[in-house]
Amino acid sequence: MIDLFSAATPNGYKVSIALEEMGLNYQLKAIDLTSNEQKQEWFLTINPNGRIPAIIDRSNDDFCVFESGAILIYLAEKSGLFLPTEPKQRSQVLQWLMFQMGGVGPMVGQAHVFYRYFPEKIPAAIQRYQSEGRRLYEVLNTQLGKHPYIAGDFSIADIATWPWVSKYEWSGISLEGLDHLQRWIEELAKRPAFIQGLLKPESGFKNDAEKAQKNQNMVTR
Amino acid sequence: MIDLFSAATPNGYKVSIALEEMGLNYQLKAIDLTSNEQKQEWFLTINPNGRIPAIIDRSNDDFCVFESGAILIYLAEKSGLFLPTEPKQRSQVLQWLMFQMGGVGPMVGQAHVFYRYFPEKIPAAIQRYQSEGRRLYEVLNTQLGKHPYIAGDFSIADIATWPWVSKYEWSGISLEGLDHLQRWIEELAKRPAFIQGLLKPESGFKNDAEKAQKNQNMVTR
Repeated sequence: MIDLFSAATPNGYKVSIALEEMGLNYQLKAIDLTSNEQKQEWFLTINPNGRIPAIIDRSNDDFCVFESGAILIYLAEKSGLFLPTEPKQRSQVLQWLMFQMGGVGPMVGQAHVFYRYFPEKIPAAIQRYQSEGRRLYEVLNTQLGKHPYIAGDFSIADIATWPWVSKYEWSGISLEGLDHLQRWIEELAKRPAFIQGLLKPESGFKNDAEKAQKNQNMVTR
Repeated sequence: MIDLFSAATPNGYKVSIALEEMGLNYQLKAIDLTSNEQKQEWFLTINPNGRIPAIIDRSNDDFCVFESGAILIYLAEKSGLFLPTEPKQRSQVLQWLMFQMGGVGPMVGQAHVFYRYFPEKIPAAIQRYQSEGRRLYEVLNTQLGKHPYIAGDFSIADIATWPWVSKYEWSGISLEGLDHLQRWIEELAKRPAFIQGLLKPESGFKNDAEKAQKNQNMVTR
């Protein structure tokens, strides 16, 4: 059994989708971002960075894992799914996972912040992150024109990237002309595990009002 | 033999330091960021994202690897160094590597951009990234108060993080009171491989004027 500490954010969804795709037993512990629950002492013993998602693997000496990219690798190795063991294929998945972790996530995240939440409207900052987000989406589109999934076969690179692309409207970034990327978004959206992975964190919240408020606070990075 | 495509940037230094620490044979191919050489067609076949660093492993069917975090994992597995095989220790290194890739790098990188390069002076953006950078440095400081290195023993997590912390002055972030972090910066700075890893990309440039200009363009993320 795995304890998943999460909330309805793109990084949170990565892990609930992965757990559903891998058929691993888990229980959701919804973290209240509005009250900064992720900064409380008890949670910092799980993730010293005070961010969701994080997991505790109760079947592995209560081992704690933080950072969504590291959780995906851990779960892939635990389940034997979606991260090849063949070294070159494996590296390709890790390269695209890093592309999401270091590029798509942070840059689209900043677009969210400046386009949606930031107290000042700063057009130059909005423009900076929307155009970098669009550039990264174009890189993905080119890759998905050559392969059915980002790293060839379906992998944790797809699971990591999808929540940061499928909500493109939230960042104000257009997908116009990115047909391969749109095809991939729609295909993954139909997978039962993706649907479940999105629903679970939502149902972990007490009510819709609370959820809406959480969304306001979902991106601090 | 490994071909390293790089430049004098924090992400570039990660890989030259790693190659030096691991004692792997490599040749530096300096990429001219001022002329956007990293966006040329020939380079996009190595890294479709058009960023440095990237490598070609000539001893492994000319296998290409991009994204500094993925290159570090690849080289660690090739050399058998600085990434444990024991699953829990290994995951801990990957967690802190992801903390650098998704947190320290992008956020301190944005501090560089808004503090140093951005055409407009936007105090709110400078403040946002300097204070997030400081928060992340504090997380590292706490960790380094408990362990000699970030993930316990010396690892690729240290190699990945050091170039993004040691140049803290460039981002205008203070290290005041972060004694454990300062101790770690100074210790690593004395390692011969770190010194060599910093020197090599520099000497790959034609002259100091060119180098200075490259530095102006070094952070686009």
